[in-house]
Amino acid sequence: MKLLIWGLSGTMGNLISVAAQKDSHWSNIAGVDAKNPTSNLKHTPEVIIDFSHPSALEGVLDYAMAHGVPLVIGTTGFEKEHLEAIDQAAKHIPVLQATNMSLGMNILFSLVEQVAGMLKNKADIEVIESHHNRKMDAPSGSAVTIVECIEKGLGEARKHQHGREGQCPREKGEIGVHAIRGGNIVGFHEANFINELETVKVSHEAHDRSVFAQGALEAAKFVVNQPTGLYHMKDVLGLT
Amino acid sequence: MKLLIWGLSGTMGNLISVAAQKDSHWSNIAGVDAKNPTSNLKHTPEVIIDFSHPSALEGVLDYAMAHGVPLVIGTTGFEKEHLEAIDQAAKHIPVLQATNMSLGMNILFSLVEQVAGMLKNKADIEVIESHHNRKMDAPSGSAVTIVECIEKGLGEARKHQHGREGQCPREKGEIGVHAIRGGNIVGFHEANFINELETVKVSHEAHDRSVFAQGALEAAKFVVNQPTGLYHMKDVLGLT
Amino acid sequence: MKLLIWGLSGTMGNLISVAAQKDSHWSNIAGVDAKNPTSNLKHTPEVIIDFSHPSALEGVLDYAMAHGVPLVIGTTGFEKEHLEAIDQAAKHIPVLQATNMSLGMNILFSLVEQVAGMLKNKADIEVIESHHNRKMDAPSGSAVTIVECIEKGLGEARKHQHGREGQCPREKGEIGVHAIRGGNIVGFHEANFINELETVKVSHEAHDRSVFAQGALEAAKFVVNQPTGLYHMKDVLGLT
Amino acid sequence: MKLLIWGLSGTMGNLISVAAQKDSHWSNIAGVDAKNPTSNLKHTPEVIIDFSHPSALEGVLDYAMAHGVPLVIGTTGFEKEHLEAIDQAAKHIPVLQATNMSLGMNILFSLVEQVAGMLKNKADIEVIESHHNRKMDAPSGSAVTIVECIEKGLGEARKHQHGREGQCPREKGEIGVHAIRGGNIVGFHEANFINELETVKVSHEAHDRSVFAQGALEAAKFVVNQPTGLYHMKDVLGLT
Repeated sequence: MKLLIWGLSGTMGNLISVAAQKDSHWSNIAGVDAKNPTSNLKHTPEVIIDFSHPSALEGVLDYAMAHGVPLVIGTTGFEKEHLEAIDQAAKHIPVLQATNMSLGMNILFSLVEQVAGMLKNKADIEVIESHHNRKMDAPSGSAVTIVECIEKGLGEARKHQHGREGQCPREKGEIGVHAIRGGNIVGFHEANFINELETVKVSHEAHDRSVFAQGALEAAKFVVNQPTGLYHMKDVLGLT
Repeated sequence: MKLLIWGLSGTMGNLISVAAQKDSHWSNIAGVDAKNPTSNLKHTPEVIIDFSHPSALEGVLDYAMAHGVPLVIGTTGFEKEHLEAIDQAAKHIPVLQATNMSLGMNILFSLVEQVAGMLKNKADIEVIESHHNRKMDAPSGSAVTIVECIEKGLGEARKHQHGREGQCPREKGEIGVHAIRGGNIVGFHEANFINELETVKVSHEAHDRSVFAQGALEAAKFVVNQPTGLYHMKDVLGLT
Repeated sequence: MKLLIWGLSGTMGNLISVAAQKDSHWSNIAGVDAKNPTSNLKHTPEVIIDFSHPSALEGVLDYAMAHGVPLVIGTTGFEKEHLEAIDQAAKHIPVLQATNMSLGMNILFSLVEQVAGMLKNKADIEVIESHHNRKMDAPSGSAVTIVECIEKGLGEARKHQHGREGQCPREKGEIGVHAIRGGNIVGFHEANFINELETVKVSHEAHDRSVFAQGALEAAKFVVNQPTGLYHMKDVLGLT
Repeated sequence: MKLLIWGLSGTMGNLISVAAQKDSHWSNIAGVDAKNPTSNLKHTPEVIIDFSHPSALEGVLDYAMAHGVPLVIGTTGFEKEHLEAIDQAAKHIPVLQATNMSLGMNILFSLVEQVAGMLKNKADIEVIESHHNRKMDAPSGSAVTIVECIEKGLGEARKHQHGREGQCPREKGEIGVHAIRGGNIVGFHEANFINELETVKVSHEAHDRSVFAQGALEAAKFVVNQPTGLYHMKDVLGLT
């Protein structure tokens, strides 16, 4: 199958290219980025994976719709207008969008929503994530999604506590979100549901950054077999 | 509400009694055991919790059916004929049976089944449980149930590996089950789903043995409001 | 041996009394607090354990020195003048002072100092502590001591980072200190030394609050056999 | 500095070569293995790292002694006669021998010995190690060394329990040693010291197999500056 990577020169684009080359499913792997426009392509791709930048979205969508090619979008940082454009495109071609392409992380998203829904106010919730010491932002995007899933399960938004120092007793219902930074940690996320008598904990550890590339390729294999519409990683996993 | 504890002099019977006395829901708490037969009871109970012994089951079922009292059974170690007798009784009165009454542990049972069903052969599965140094058997009954739930999710039984020593490479598909013993650990269970790139882990820690008593009382409150039939802890949790 | 608990009506005083009653080493257990002055005592104690309040320190020291009784001080929150008074008293009687009486925690204090001394700038250091949801202050006193021990091992003070939110890349050398709060957690402390290739982790978990009482009684048994002077828990453990 | 890797074509030899090439300290990196004898070497090395096989030891020692080159030995699986030959060689050249070259793991070896020495019979000891699903033997060589260090701290050998199934209550004093296997786990080791009231835990996680190569290169830099004698990784770390 012919794959086009939009954003080939980025970290994720590169990882996806490396992973695809090891899998005979992909007969042809091409890339587009700032220096290599679509006019250089020798083949029309059968599926596109986009890990570029919100500013490139319009070009990706136009190309995919013009050629009727299914699309996987892994780029993050979209504004409302971008998300609307994706919704529109999904009326013409199959589109899968996800902020985290790891299968295991998407399982975690599902689990934390369920546990929160089952325990409601019976547990104090504390989320911990660990990443390498070069990461600029905190908490991680995936930790933000975990908290969103928890709040969906709880049925309400909660106050987030990103650190405690001095006199700061725990407010009833607040969600603690703690960012550990050190070394070259690939990515660890853990949600703790703690009550007086017991703790339920669910966690995900990425051992290798290629796990995100692997997930993107699984998503690509999935989306080519779908009718027009908007899909998410949970569709790939059969979590719906 | 009037509660009868069958097996009051046992560890669990005692814990349930202590927990019930702190909860004004229970207006009257009575107990039956080898030295205190039902003929001593001053009131007909509104619900019965049984933590006694398989040999006492017939007496419990007869009494509960004769007086039309809903029944929670926490006793373990039943043979096939006991389970059939419970099935029969559940045609006359509401009966809830569970091997572990902790709400959190029953959430874990649900989670491991799901994760196993989603990952199937994509992950190596290793279960670890920790208990106090006086525990006689290994693995714990709850660990056995965790493995059963995992196999239900996988859709097939697997070989169980209870320890590795010498030349013993991991067989594809085997489930590792490891029993840690030390100090006064109340109870910890963890299921690891490990593949080449990521690990999903779900765990439960009991901080206090009264968590099991608490679960039994929640089950009792639930079963009194149900029609005749057989129920499980997942019904209490709304996990069905 | 005759024990006097100064601050018997407090949480720790009570726990020490309960623990001492189970140990035949202690033939007589008496208590002093706001309502029970020393004038009520029937026996002169052979050792005193103080878990009261800094404002009571002068009375404790005067009584212990007047009767020549060895003293264990577990009270916290002292000012410089209190510490000086303790130093003075230790010229007349044996005095043991400690902010955490648990043997395991004092082992942790020793380990983190060593690991920090061996790894120096080779590792990013992140400390995590977990306590019950009613705890008022963060980080815990023991976590503060852990950080002090780490800095002693490093040979220098460091910046402490008590939470990360937004754009906050890790500064080289900063020590992360994270306070988890939930349920009824007795006390957990963990120090992570993380570099590009490996992580060394040391942790302590208190399963029961009586561990602090147990440590105080061990300290009392130790101090009665010592000459005049000031002692610490590491002397009890033979860590010097 | 000129480095010779004995066993270049092996996994560790290859990792050491890759790591050395990134470090300008090493001006020349040569290798010896079954197909490339020492007669092919263009330079006399300034230090040798051996990760080959016990059967190659005689050749390594002869070459190193003949040319007066300091030697690091990482090969494992030696018999008594091999160890005696190493002792003899160390009378002529500086030799460093270690079963695990990771600095962090050697810190762990030191910590577990100390904790065991401080707690003696006060704690139940359980060791857990996790490795990838292709590992043939259990427990890992490093776990064996951890147990040896613990027994050195305890001052006596203990029974080792490599798994628990059925009726198998914990015997007083036995050390549990549990081998988890799954996915591509690089290497995790944890020692738990558990008593009735508290647990002290020390652990080491290798994030990348190159950590062992890194340690070997550190050892090589160390040994070239030493007088004739036998050295261990704890000398590199200043742990003596």
